[in-house]
Amino acid sequence: MKKLLNDPYKYVDEMLVGMCAAHPEIYRQTGEGGRVIARAGSQRPDKVGIVSGGGSGHLPVFTGYVGHGLLDACAIGDVFASPSVEQMAEAMKVAHAGAGVLRLYGNYGGDVMNFDMAGEQLEMEEDIQSTTVLLADDVSSAPPEEGEKRRGVAGMVYAFKIAGAAAEQMRSLEEVTRIAQETADSCRSVGAALTPCTIPQAGKATFEIADDEMEMGMGIHGEPGVWRDKLKPADDIAHEMVDRLIADRAIDSGDRLSVMVNSLGATPPEELYILYRVVKKRVEELGATIVMPLVGRYATSMEMSGVSMTFCFLNQEREALLQAPARCAFWQVE
Amino acid sequence: MKKLLNDPYKYVDEMLVGMCAAHPEIYRQTGEGGRVIARAGSQRPDKVGIVSGGGSGHLPVFTGYVGHGLLDACAIGDVFASPSVEQMAEAMKVAHAGAGVLRLYGNYGGDVMNFDMAGEQLEMEEDIQSTTVLLADDVSSAPPEEGEKRRGVAGMVYAFKIAGAAAEQMRSLEEVTRIAQETADSCRSVGAALTPCTIPQAGKATFEIADDEMEMGMGIHGEPGVWRDKLKPADDIAHEMVDRLIADRAIDSGDRLSVMVNSLGATPPEELYILYRVVKKRVEELGATIVMPLVGRYATSMEMSGVSMTFCFLNQEREALLQAPARCAFWQVE
Repeated sequence: MKKLLNDPYKYVDEMLVGMCAAHPEIYRQTGEGGRVIARAGSQRPDKVGIVSGGGSGHLPVFTGYVGHGLLDACAIGDVFASPSVEQMAEAMKVAHAGAGVLRLYGNYGGDVMNFDMAGEQLEMEEDIQSTTVLLADDVSSAPPEEGEKRRGVAGMVYAFKIAGAAAEQMRSLEEVTRIAQETADSCRSVGAALTPCTIPQAGKATFEIADDEMEMGMGIHGEPGVWRDKLKPADDIAHEMVDRLIADRAIDSGDRLSVMVNSLGATPPEELYILYRVVKKRVEELGATIVMPLVGRYATSMEMSGVSMTFCFLNQEREALLQAPARCAFWQVE
Repeated sequence: MKKLLNDPYKYVDEMLVGMCAAHPEIYRQTGEGGRVIARAGSQRPDKVGIVSGGGSGHLPVFTGYVGHGLLDACAIGDVFASPSVEQMAEAMKVAHAGAGVLRLYGNYGGDVMNFDMAGEQLEMEEDIQSTTVLLADDVSSAPPEEGEKRRGVAGMVYAFKIAGAAAEQMRSLEEVTRIAQETADSCRSVGAALTPCTIPQAGKATFEIADDEMEMGMGIHGEPGVWRDKLKPADDIAHEMVDRLIADRAIDSGDRLSVMVNSLGATPPEELYILYRVVKKRVEELGATIVMPLVGRYATSMEMSGVSMTFCFLNQEREALLQAPARCAFWQVE
């Protein structure tokens, strides 16, 4: 395991301390064991709160997206592990400013169970109204007819951004929830892995893969994909990823969409740009327009090598919200 | 070689096409083979032009830093290889808006030779006045008494930012050059490598290192460092890096400095934040203040794993310029 760390059991806590120390104007730690990251300063009264949560090891997801026009608070677990019910409840309490809270996160069993319990608990004990929107954008994790089984991946970045902007406009919980759900429904993602990563506490790679192989459709925690074979040329991979996305939701002439070409961690931006050429060409050949392409590291698995591609279909409302100002340590939109 | 690419000989060109396609509002390609990246739109008349140049494979360095408040143009070579004299001359021509051009780049033999020739050529043929400031901030690449032999690494990001802001203020070439030189003189860096990277055209790793080893002081192209040994705990590495930096230039009580904790590529932000805890503590124990810490990927070697640390000592002038607005695809300062 080649990582810059101290005690693996302190990896998450030391990381959070460092993140908040580097950006005290954006983040603050609160909650049990400091495992809730909230926006610095106090909540704007009557703004809908947006919370997320999940395991560590995916920066900027999840905690990194706490900030203006994005999330209000985030509960964070150990690497690839759910936060506790208490931590999730604390994140919701911190985010609540009188107008209720949207829970916006990825479709993973442990997270859903804990977040639902936290929501019920707060509704009973503190009369905090809350809603849930789950991201389930990974098209290779289940067929369309079993869409509710799909995992949430980088599409959640669009949901954070678009719902976050709606909340900043002081829209109601009902409205913010509708917009988040429509954004979640408008996102499709697919990933491909080249190398695994190592969970610090486990000390070994999440999966094995030969030096000349790749796996199409693999999940960000190493969940099995749709095929494993020799590494293909970048353009072939980009074409296949586009094919898989448009097979799930067609791109029509006149569509406007944002496209994310995301590194899973180690893959450098040079390679993402090589892939982006193909995506742009394909989308434009279909008569559609790319708005605000995102090429970089938006949802990762530490030092994992690989890439994911997300299409976020826009309407006028989502496009304006996507382009509204936002600011966290990892992403600024002016 | 596990990279997402097509023909290795087209790696740089395809990467540049993709980068400009993703960010047409920031970058445009020009020059021989499209190997000059310039700011989109036309130059502001009588603004001093700032150009850089060097090999590919270091994004955001160099081309990524073309943008408002940063560089005006950049000549870019193959991976880890100097651009040609013609490409450097073209970058200078594009950047010249009547007030002369500052060449601001790292101290590497091939780059210096070509950039000097390009400068002489333009002065003779086109009467374009130009100056040079070299970054030589890597303290482990030569002892202080041989400072002119030191390599330039991540310190150049500070020089781009601070000199870029001075140029936006419409200061003269003499002033911008003075400020760039003072910034270069105020930066100290040290790096440590965990794994090599692969030059696409070579197809094999730039160096070999055992699975449990690290090398302190290694350069971003794999230049030999000061020791190689078993990987140490993160805090020990951070302390040693701080020790090496302050041995070269002491931190005095009352000093104000920016600190960069930079990933060489694959090392994730989680690990950088673990290191930052130590740096902050050490600097503050000496009675100094950290201004605008930069924790992330600012100067890389593709998928190389490792970290570098840079101190940039500030005075009032440099601090204001560091915090002035800037915008490129990889970094926004508001």
